[in-house]
Order: sequence, then structure tokens, then C-alpha cells
Amino acid sequence: MNRTQPKPGWKSKIHEIIYEADTPAGKFFDVALLIVIAISIILVMLESVSTLNLKFYWHFYIAEWIITIIFTIEYILRVIAIKRPKNYIFSFYGIVDLLSTLPTYLSLILGGHNLLFAVRALRLLRVFRILKITRYIGESNRLLLALRNSRPKIIVFLFAVLIICVIMGTVMHLVEGEKGGFDNIPLSIYWAIVTLTTVGFGDIHPVTPLGRFIASFIMIVGYGIIAVPTGIVTSEITRAQKKPIPTNTQVCPHCNEAKHMDDAEFCHNCGKKLNEE
Amino acid sequence: MNRTQPKPGWKSKIHEIIYEADTPAGKFFDVALLIVIAISIILVMLESVSTLNLKFYWHFYIAEWIITIIFTIEYILRVIAIKRPKNYIFSFYGIVDLLSTLPTYLSLILGGHNLLFAVRALRLLRVFRILKITRYIGESNRLLLALRNSRPKIIVFLFAVLIICVIMGTVMHLVEGEKGGFDNIPLSIYWAIVTLTTVGFGDIHPVTPLGRFIASFIMIVGYGIIAVPTGIVTSEITRAQKKPIPTNTQVCPHCNEAKHMDDAEFCHNCGKKLNEE
Amino acid sequence: MNRTQPKPGWKSKIHEIIYEADTPAGKFFDVALLIVIAISIILVMLESVSTLNLKFYWHFYIAEWIITIIFTIEYILRVIAIKRPKNYIFSFYGIVDLLSTLPTYLSLILGGHNLLFAVRALRLLRVFRILKITRYIGESNRLLLALRNSRPKIIVFLFAVLIICVIMGTVMHLVEGEKGGFDNIPLSIYWAIVTLTTVGFGDIHPVTPLGRFIASFIMIVGYGIIAVPTGIVTSEITRAQKKPIPTNTQVCPHCNEAKHMDDAEFCHNCGKKLNEE
Amino acid sequence: MNRTQPKPGWKSKIHEIIYEADTPAGKFFDVALLIVIAISIILVMLESVSTLNLKFYWHFYIAEWIITIIFTIEYILRVIAIKRPKNYIFSFYGIVDLLSTLPTYLSLILGGHNLLFAVRALRLLRVFRILKITRYIGESNRLLLALRNSRPKIIVFLFAVLIICVIMGTVMHLVEGEKGGFDNIPLSIYWAIVTLTTVGFGDIHPVTPLGRFIASFIMIVGYGIIAVPTGIVTSEITRAQKKPIPTNTQVCPHCNEAKHMDDAEFCHNCGKKLNEE
Repeated sequence: MNRTQPKPGWKSKIHEIIYEADTPAGKFFDVALLIVIAISIILVMLESVSTLNLKFYWHFYIAEWIITIIFTIEYILRVIAIKRPKNYIFSFYGIVDLLSTLPTYLSLILGGHNLLFAVRALRLLRVFRILKITRYIGESNRLLLALRNSRPKIIVFLFAVLIICVIMGTVMHLVEGEKGGFDNIPLSIYWAIVTLTTVGFGDIHPVTPLGRFIASFIMIVGYGIIAVPTGIVTSEITRAQKKPIPTNTQVCPHCNEAKHMDDAEFCHNCGKKLNEE
Repeated sequence: MNRTQPKPGWKSKIHEIIYEADTPAGKFFDVALLIVIAISIILVMLESVSTLNLKFYWHFYIAEWIITIIFTIEYILRVIAIKRPKNYIFSFYGIVDLLSTLPTYLSLILGGHNLLFAVRALRLLRVFRILKITRYIGESNRLLLALRNSRPKIIVFLFAVLIICVIMGTVMHLVEGEKGGFDNIPLSIYWAIVTLTTVGFGDIHPVTPLGRFIASFIMIVGYGIIAVPTGIVTSEITRAQKKPIPTNTQVCPHCNEAKHMDDAEFCHNCGKKLNEE
Repeated sequence: MNRTQPKPGWKSKIHEIIYEADTPAGKFFDVALLIVIAISIILVMLESVSTLNLKFYWHFYIAEWIITIIFTIEYILRVIAIKRPKNYIFSFYGIVDLLSTLPTYLSLILGGHNLLFAVRALRLLRVFRILKITRYIGESNRLLLALRNSRPKIIVFLFAVLIICVIMGTVMHLVEGEKGGFDNIPLSIYWAIVTLTTVGFGDIHPVTPLGRFIASFIMIVGYGIIAVPTGIVTSEITRAQKKPIPTNTQVCPHCNEAKHMDDAEFCHNCGKKLNEE
Repeated sequence: MNRTQPKPGWKSKIHEIIYEADTPAGKFFDVALLIVIAISIILVMLESVSTLNLKFYWHFYIAEWIITIIFTIEYILRVIAIKRPKNYIFSFYGIVDLLSTLPTYLSLILGGHNLLFAVRALRLLRVFRILKITRYIGESNRLLLALRNSRPKIIVFLFAVLIICVIMGTVMHLVEGEKGGFDNIPLSIYWAIVTLTTVGFGDIHPVTPLGRFIASFIMIVGYGIIAVPTGIVTSEITRAQKKPIPTNTQVCPHCNEAKHMDDAEFCHNCGKKLNEE
């Protein structure tokens, strides 16, 4: 790091602030953005409560516009700061960021409400971006690693659960008919899932003795096989706990690639310098 | 493998395609069959929705016949391709395959609907056959091995759960009587299973203070002992994860035996050549 | 074992048959008894269904008497066969066995039904006696050992769960009042247990926003801490799996002590010979 | 310990009795206090049942005053016995102990009932103080250690669960609207938590086919990811089980610090003697 370096341009400074969380300014930006996102989500929630929406309509309207403008500025900065804007614009987060601002502008032209409201809820997805600043990043990486390793087993398990639910749902439809609300097979499969996962809403439930007997069987199976995913994940987590995990938050200014080693100086994806200052 | 071999007959070619998943043609056949089975299951499901059945009666009728004919051709090919057809015809899958086609033909003669519909639902069981092509086969073998090893413990556990449910159901019937819906002991046992497995439909629930106290006890017991099957399966999976598992999909053309070692050349069941080309 | 032995008396023969499961006759006795107990339990269950009781009153009455007589004979044999009858009569199983026969005789004198019916349900407890013949006896011993080792931890855990439920129930009573059915604190604690254990009947549920917020908190806590007993039991089972377990079913004819080592010749409790033939 | 010591004053004797559980008198005090606390909690509970409160109003009133006076004496003794009363008075337990006595006195002046009743329920928190006398103290320490180690992972997990619930709640509000009771987003999030944690009250449940499909997805996700906290805690408990844990119940008479090593003679917090007799 004790090399002579050219002065960093304002673009790379902005890049460091909004794409990374290594510097104080970068951390501050991320925390501030997290708060704005949280506020925007809470606003969307409260706006959906009709009594509140009638009472505070204008408050919501103004707050909505302030947040949209903040998000618009952030989006423009993100496009400017990166070397290859296309990498950002067409990435998952780029599209989510754009969809966080567009609905409010569109409401000026279209005036329509309900569908735009739905799109606005997409802002929630922005939360995932901020997860990287949590001080538990090493832990969440470890968890994700354990989950990723146990994914094939979990998929096999969930597939088996689905087949059991389809078979049991069909059987219950034939046994219970329309007395207990098992009107058709899809509805009966829905009931089987509700039962096997031990949720048990109770909106549909068997009323015939045979139906109850089969339901008891499904419940005991569900109670028994919940052990399987647990066993899978436990053995993976026990294994994952033994390995060290990199916790670097740097992002390559050229290709937007994350997950660099702690002492990396060049991007492992595009080969260019990481700290081009 | 570099021996001089006689030209494979068309029967063994068909055998390779429909009974194995090693060759591109075999894989294609399995995937295509899986899709047809999935479509047939979805059709049975949708047909059970009365509004859809009224609207699209003829669509369902024609689709039903197309699928039945496809399954019939497949069944005939399976019988022809194997050396000893009896091994297939009287195997579990052979009977399921036959029952997948018969109901539609019988409906021509009998016209009856409800029972044939039930038999048609057996097509679901065909899904299991296709499981072998999943790329997770090693994983599912590992899972099955862990489950098989923990079976005696799980059976002891479920037996204990059943005894608890029978005792608790009897106690609740005596305590609650017919006020809360605990009309008789079998119904009360059903309620105890619903409660102990933490499903909790709520169609039957205690209303007296003493009944609620006992119910609380059952719930806490259920919450505590769910740990037991999980502990059993976890320790088995941890153990199973240390052993390598064969992932061969070959099936002997003579005796229909599966589960050969990866480098097996002779069937370990009947002693004949596996790749009789 | 190749010592010269005196001829075994008929008492010790009966002892071997009804108290042990090592000989063919002993196994047969245990299986036959299990079947009679199972039938007697099913009869008690079915008798509680009022429609069946009206229809088959006399069938139940006769079956009841047959079973009572079988149990009476068995009880007398058990008392005769053992060297010190008091050890059996005043043991847990001795009392249960007596209570399995008495109610029917009492009904001749008293004619009363409901309370005697309750006592008759105690026959269920006889099932535990038979558990020893299961071929999974090693497994269930292992499970019991793991459960016994994790008992102190489980008790601490359940105590913590109870305190959480008491606090949460009190809070919910204060927050919800009588709107959502949280009429008093015991009822609210019952609701908290129903919720924390993820049973969720739905007979009582919060209706105010604050009540729902607190309920969400309780549910997430319950979802999180279910991990604790599982973790406890899993680590105990993993440990227990490494030790061999004695699977002897012999019972000392002198003091009725069970759990002898496989090659034991003298009772570790009273010091007398085990196989006094 | 074989040093010549000055005679202990009555203050340090009281300190030993009410702050520690090493001596017979200390143990007796703790058990007696636990019983009084348990009685006071049961009284608060029963008082909330309106039928009982009407019938036994004066019994409750008198018992209430007796317990308040006992708690007042205990509070005064605690303040006197300790060297630096401020350490106790402004500690968590000091405030809880004060709040356990005040409401009854305030009711003389104010006469108001409902809010004071709420404060009185705080007595429940006193139970935690007594936990230290349980003979399972080593076990509960071990459990707490395992839970503390798994806290960061559990927090990451619960954060992920919350985000899933927020997203799913929003989606369900948009899909179901007000038909199934999904009136607004906060209510829908409440429903998503009820469902994901497998509680399933059933007061709100989807009624449209698409809503049921998404609900099935949420349930299967909830059923699958319950494995994660279990896996985390299990691997921590397995690890924690290998370390010895100090089980000392002594408390420093100077600074009120607990958790000393078994052979500690000086407080590790303030450096003064622990057994200043």
C-alpha cells in the first residue's frame, strides 16, 4: 500500500462511498440509506391502512415525493460512479433501484394507483443490498454457505414433501368429499400442506372418522419428518463452523464484482486494480 | 470395455432407453415421460375443480385419452423390452403403470366415474419412478440411508407419541366431556394428535379451566419431544455424510435389478452381463 | 450354565413365562397379553362413541367381562408366581393391574358408570409393561438414556418457557383486555402457551394492533427457541450412540428387579440366583 | 481459609442470608422467598378472573397487604445489608423489588386500579432472581453460554425471517385484498409471521387460489428454515458441552458483582475481600 498513487478522481471517491463500506463515509452512506429505505417501507405499510390513508393523505403524498427524489439522486450517482454503467443498470439491484423510483413519476401521468402501489412495494428488495454492512457479515456468510451446501438435500426433501402432499390431498378429497371443505384436489393439497407443515389454520378440517384417521397419520408424518431438514442443516453448520470466512466488502469499480479476499489488490474477475486511487 | 461385442438388438436398445438414464436417448425419454406424468397429474387435479370441469369437459376428455394412449404404448414397450416380462408386470411399478391406463378404458364400458377417478389418481405414484434421473440421486440415497438407520428409533418414538396421545385423549374426554367437542375417546385422541404435533386446527378445543391446563401440558410436552426425532435423524445424517454412495442408474436387462456399483459389468443379482451389447 | 440344577418348580416356570421374555413361552405370553390389552383399550374407546354404545351395548358388556376375567386370572398368577408377592402388589404395575380388573366387579354392586369408566381407562398404562418385548429394546434404552441425560437442561428450558408464557400472558391480558377473549390472566397464559409452542388453535387471538405486534414477537421467540431442546437432545443422542447398551429382559424371581447384565447369574439387587432352576 | 478473622457483624450476616445461597440459612431464605413470590403471582392471576374477584374480594385484599408488607421488609433489609445501597437500589432487580411494593401503597391514595394492577404484574420478574438457587445452575449457565454464542447467527436468521415476512405480507395484501381479511400490509405481515412460524391461528386465511398457492409456498419455506436456528444452537450446545462451567453463587458484599470462581477470595470487579467475616 506504500506505492505512489495518482490522486483519486471524484468518481472513484463516490464509488468508494456508495459501493463500499470500508471507509467512515461509506459506512455513513450505507446507514443513512438503510434508514431512508426503512422509512420508505414503513410509509408503504402505513399507507395501506385505509383509516390512516384517509387521515394523513397529504403527509404520505409529500413524504413519498421526498423519498422518490432521494432514491433518484442515489440512482443517478450509482450510474455515474461506476466505470461500466451497463453492469449496474442491468444487474438485479440496478433494476430494483430503478423500480423504486419510477412508480411515483408514473403516477403523475397515469394517476392509476393499485398496480403502481404493488411495484412500489419492490423497494423492500433494496433491504438486501444493505445487509452487507451488518457487523455479523461473517456469520451470515457462514450461514449462507451451510444453506448452499445443504441445498441439494433440502430440495430432494421438499420434493418428497410435495409428493406426499399431492398424494395425501388426493386421498383426502376422495375420502372427505365436500363435507369438510375438501371441494377439489388443489384445495385438498393446500390443506395437506397446511397440515404437514404443522401450521393448521383450521379453515378446512376433516369431519368424517376415516378422514380424521388419515389426517392423524399426515400430522404424525409431518411431526416426524421435520427432523430431516434440521438434521441436514445441523450437520452442514457444524461443518461450516470449522472454516474461516472472508469478510471483505470491497466491490471492483470496473466490473462490480464483490467477494474479494481481504488482501486482494486486483479484481479476480476482470483483472484490473481494485483501489485505483 | 474394449471387448468385441455382438450388435445390440432393438429390444436391448429400447431397454436402454426406457429403463436406464445413462445415454442421451435414455435421459430424453425419462424427461419426456416425467413431463407427460406431470401433465396427467395436473389434469386429474383440475378436473376435480367442478367449475373447470363444467367449462372444459371436452378438453379434459380428449387430453385424458391422449395421455392414456401414450401410457399404453409405454406399458407395451416396457413389457416387450425386458427379458423376463413377469418381473416387470408383477412388480410394484408394473402394477402402477397398468392401473394408470386401465381406468380410462373401463370408463368406456362402465361409464361410472367416481371410483375410476380414484384409481386414476394412482398415476401419482409413477412420479417415484422418475426420481432416479434427478442429479441429486447421491444426496437422496444418503438421506434414505440416514432415515433407514434411524427407523427403529423413530418407530419407538412414534409409538411412545401414540401412547401419550391415547392416554391424553382419554383424560381430555373425561375432563371436558361434550362441552368442548370431546364427544368420544377416538375424537379426543384425534384432538391430542392435532395438539401434540403442534398443528392445532382449532375445530375442537378445551373450554374448561382444567381442560385448558391439561392441554397446556400436552402442548409443552409436544414442543419438548419434537426434539427427539430431530436428534435421531441429525446424528444419523452426520454419520451418513462420511460414507461415499454409489450413484449408478443402470438396471439389469435380465432381472430388472437396480443399484449396481459404478464399474459393475455383471448383475450382482442374477450374474448375467449388464451391458449385453 | 452347564451346572447340575434341581428341577424347576411350576412356580418358577410360571414366573419365567409371565415375567420374562427370553423363552418361546414367555414371548408368546407377552404377545398374547399385548393383544388382549390392545383389544381392551379399543373396546373402551369404541364404547365411548354413543352411537356405537347404543347399538352394540350387549356386545360391549360381554367382551368387557371376558377381558376382566382374563386380567383377573393373570393378576392371580402374577401374585402366585413371585416369591415376595408384596413386591409386586404394591409396585406401580401391581396397582395398575388391580385397577384394570376392579371397576367391572364394582359396577355389579354400584351400577355407577362414569367414574368407573375413568378408572377402566387406566388399563392403557398396562401397555408400558409390554414395551419390553419390542425388538427395538436396545434403541428405546438408548433414547431413554439420552432423554434422562438431557433432563436437567430440558427442565431448565421448560421452566424458562413457562416464565415467558406467564409474563407474556399477563402483558397480553393488559393490552388486549376482553376484546380478543383474553378475559383473565390464566386464560391469557393458556393462549401464550398455545402460541409459543406454535400450536395456534385460534379460539383466542389478538385483535388490536399492539396485541398483534406482541403476538408476532411471541411467535418469533417460540420459533427461535424450539431450537434449544432439539440442540440439547441431539448432542445427547450423538453421545449416547457411542456406548453399548444391555438388552437383557430377565427379572429377578426374588425381588422383581429388572435390568440385569446379559451374563448375570445373581441379582445385583438382592444377591440371590437369577435362574433358580 | 485458616486465617484469624474478626467477628462478622449482623449486616454481613444478613448479607450472607439474603444475597447468597451457600449457607443453610441463605438457602432457606431463598426457598421461602420463592414461595412468597409464587403465591403473590398466583394471587395476581386469580384476582384477574372476574368471578373469583367478586367472590373472594376481601381475601385477595388481605393477602395482597400481607405480601406487600413481607416484600417491604425484604426490600429494607436488602438496602441495609449491602455496603453500597446505591448499587442495589438503581440495579434492575432493585427497581423491580421497589415496584413490587409501591402499587399497593399507591392504591391507598389513588384508589385507581387498572394501571397499578399492571405494575403489580412486574413481580413476575422477581422470579428470575431466584433462579440461581436451582440445582441445575451449571446446566442453565451452559445453555445460556450456548445461546449467547449463537446470538449473532440467530439475529441474522430472525432478520432474514422478518424480511421474508414483510415481503410475503405485502404480496398477500396485493393478491388477496380484503376478501380473506388481508385488509392492510401490517395485518398481512402479522399473518405471514403467524404462518411462517407454523402457528396458524386461522383468524385470517387466504381464500383465493393464488393466495393459497403463495401461502403454501410460505408454509413450506417456514417448515424448511426452522432447521436453521436448530442447526445453529445444536452445534453451539455440542461445543459448550465440552467446557467446565463455574457454579459459584457468591455475591460480592461491596459491589454486588456475581459470577466469582469457586475458589475466589477477592472480588474480580472491585478487588475487595469476598468473605469479609
